[in-house]
Formats: sequence, structure tokens, C-alpha cells
Amino acid sequence: MQIKRFIEQETKTQTYIIHRNNKATIIDSVFSDVDLYLDFIKSNNLQLLYSLDTHVHADHITGSSKIREKTGCKIAMGKYAGARGIDVLLEDDQELNLEDLSIKTLYTPGHTNESCCYLIEGRLFTGDTLLINACGRTDFQNGSAEDLYDSIFNKLLMLPCETLVYPGHDYNNRFVSSIADEKANNPRLQVESKQDFINIMNNLKLPKPKFIDIAVPRNLLCGADI
Amino acid sequence: MQIKRFIEQETKTQTYIIHRNNKATIIDSVFSDVDLYLDFIKSNNLQLLYSLDTHVHADHITGSSKIREKTGCKIAMGKYAGARGIDVLLEDDQELNLEDLSIKTLYTPGHTNESCCYLIEGRLFTGDTLLINACGRTDFQNGSAEDLYDSIFNKLLMLPCETLVYPGHDYNNRFVSSIADEKANNPRLQVESKQDFINIMNNLKLPKPKFIDIAVPRNLLCGADI
Repeated sequence: MQIKRFIEQETKTQTYIIHRNNKATIIDSVFSDVDLYLDFIKSNNLQLLYSLDTHVHADHITGSSKIREKTGCKIAMGKYAGARGIDVLLEDDQELNLEDLSIKTLYTPGHTNESCCYLIEGRLFTGDTLLINACGRTDFQNGSAEDLYDSIFNKLLMLPCETLVYPGHDYNNRFVSSIADEKANNPRLQVESKQDFINIMNNLKLPKPKFIDIAVPRNLLCGADI
Repeated sequence: MQIKRFIEQETKTQTYIIHRNNKATIIDSVFSDVDLYLDFIKSNNLQLLYSLDTHVHADHITGSSKIREKTGCKIAMGKYAGARGIDVLLEDDQELNLEDLSIKTLYTPGHTNESCCYLIEGRLFTGDTLLINACGRTDFQNGSAEDLYDSIFNKLLMLPCETLVYPGHDYNNRFVSSIADEKANNPRLQVESKQDFINIMNNLKLPKPKFIDIAVPRNLLCGADI
């Protein structure tokens, strides 16, 4: 299993192409960078089977629809995504097979109410649910600090501590972490109670995402033109 | 491929058992924790094929000799280790096969003149050559800041940026990093010239390692009793 990472600089979105034996999947693509992914896929002679998103993003437009158009891949997302044009709706705990790789969906609401993480051979693609030394905000798209606490503490942190964490964004030039690292170091996880975590999340006072009014409607069409 | 990490708390040594299909190897074991490793090996029904060390450690005694005694595994180290009792001397770039896993030795002098890193399917076990946000000191055991610069900049940082970095120690509760992370964030690597790096390394003013006079002679026998 190999991973290629791409970073979209304006939104610091981390996109991953995972492949083995020439079969590939892409996670959390960005519309403006689709040509980069297609070049990589072509030059490595890969067959793209799936384009996955962890959630309906508010900060960037997914490349899923355009990628499907160019490659014939299927678009897969968590069953609660509510987006039109999804080919495969993923249940919690469902395993999607990429030849001999298995992609397990973990339903992890909180950042948004349909967020999922994807677990592939000890590597967890967390979208905005768990970031390195942070976590996604919970103040729009039916986000819930309470749900996020449950998703992180009762689901993600229950995974083996060696599990690698590949977040959907990083604003400090970090690429990879692990459950052990986040347990030990993530300041938002060093809380004594669920209420402490909720208090932190409810007092972040973050600005409205710059592109939310454009990105969410497009992402509810898997990134297709409106 | 699965990785189990152990941490020896006194010296913050990170020991790794890597396994697939019940065949295992251990990297940078600690003498006092051998029973922990053996319990893990037994309870997971593993066959330990190799005990590897990245270098002749100054801060702790390797468990290699005791582990070989208990499991019948072979001890492997870089060819310049100079320790008595090694079964397999590894050349630079040599690949050691652990059934279907290949362990590639990268000769990376600098921290000590015989230090090696081991590369296994995109995961680099760096010993003290490259640490998370730091690197090993170069002021004993024929260490050389100049060599370390070459090993890090001209060898390790040339690996794909997605390569995972598993260091031999971490003093800040971090477990895993990557070449991308270290390139972007490791303060000792943000230098403009080799001389800048050498100047940093030559001015660290670190105390003498507490156990060096006990650890090095024992490690020159692969941890066997003197």
C-alpha cells in the first residue's frame, strides 16, 4: 500500500491517493487540483476505483464529480452525506474493497453530522474529525461538540495506539500523526470531562469559512457544476 | 504489516516489533523490557526472526542477546557496528527478507559512525539519526556532525516525503513523523548550509549520557553479560 499526498495551498487541504497493485482510491480531493491527481494516476499507471470524501466540506469544492467524469471511478461517501450523485453509500463499519485493500468506514459525526473517517490497514483518514493537535470545529452544518467528543473518545481513541492519523487539513505543515500522538499531545483531548471538551469547542469564536456559501451547495452535488 | 511500539520510560527508548503473517522482527530493544516483548510475541503467536539495532546505543543496554537466547532469532546490525555476537552483518542498501517483508539497511553515520536506519515498506526506523524535531547528538562514539548532515540531507530527505519516520527515542511523547514533517518542521534541518548544521551540533553542550560507561561495553557484546 502506498500513499501519495497532495496539499491544496489556499485551504491547506490534504488529499490522498492510496494505491496497491495499480488499483487506487482518492480521499478528499479538491476541484481545482484535479489535473494534478489525474497526472499522478496516469504517470503511475493506476486505475482509480473510488473517489471518497470524508464529509460535505465547507472550505473547498470536492473534485469527486470531475474525477468521476474523467476516470469512470465511483463516488463513495458516508450514507448520511445527503449529496446527490453518490454511487456508493457507506454504512458505519462497512468495508469497501479495493482489490486486496479494505477501506473501512467509521461514522464519526461531530464536525458535521455526516462526517466519516476511513480506516485502511492501520491508517486512519480523519477528514476534519481529528486533526493534528486539534479537531474540526462544530459550529455549522449540524455540527455537535457532544457528538464529536463521542466520535473521538469512544471510537477513534479506541483504535490501537499505533494507528496512523492522516488529517484532512493541517495549518502547521504537519502531515501525519497517530492515535498515540494525539492521545498524548492534542490539547483539545487533554480534558477531564465531556463538558470540558464541549466548553472548549463552544468558545472557539472562529470566523465563518470564506467559501462556505459556494462550497457546500457544490459539494451537495459531489462538486458538479450547479 | 503491523507495528507494535514499546516505550522504555527511563530512557524514552522506542522499540518496535514489526510483523506480518506471524513473522516478526524487533528493532532497538531494551534489556530490561525483554519480558514484555516475549509476552507480546507469545500472545500473538509470532515467530521472531531477527533482532536488529540501529547502532551501539550509549543510553541503554540492548535486549538482543537475551532475546536471541529466548527465541532463537538472529541478531542483525550494520556491518560497521563492531559488536561481538552479531549473526548477520548488514551492508548499506542490503535487503533482509522477513518472509514477504523486505528490510532495507541505509548506512547513516553521524550520531555514531556505525549508525544505520532500516526502511520497511515506506516506514523508516531511524534510531538516533533523525528524531522528531531533532536529531541524535554527534559528540561521542566517533560521531560527526558533518557525516550526520550528509546522512540526513543526502540520504534520508531524498526518500519520498510520505515516508514515515519512527525514531529510536522521543522525549516529548511523539511516536511517529514523516520525511515531509521533518523537512518542514525539524528546527535542526532549517539550515542554509552544512556549516550552519555543524555549528548547531557542535554547540549543544549536552551532559554525558548517564549510562554510557555501562551501556556501550555491554552493547559491544549485543547486550550479553560481561
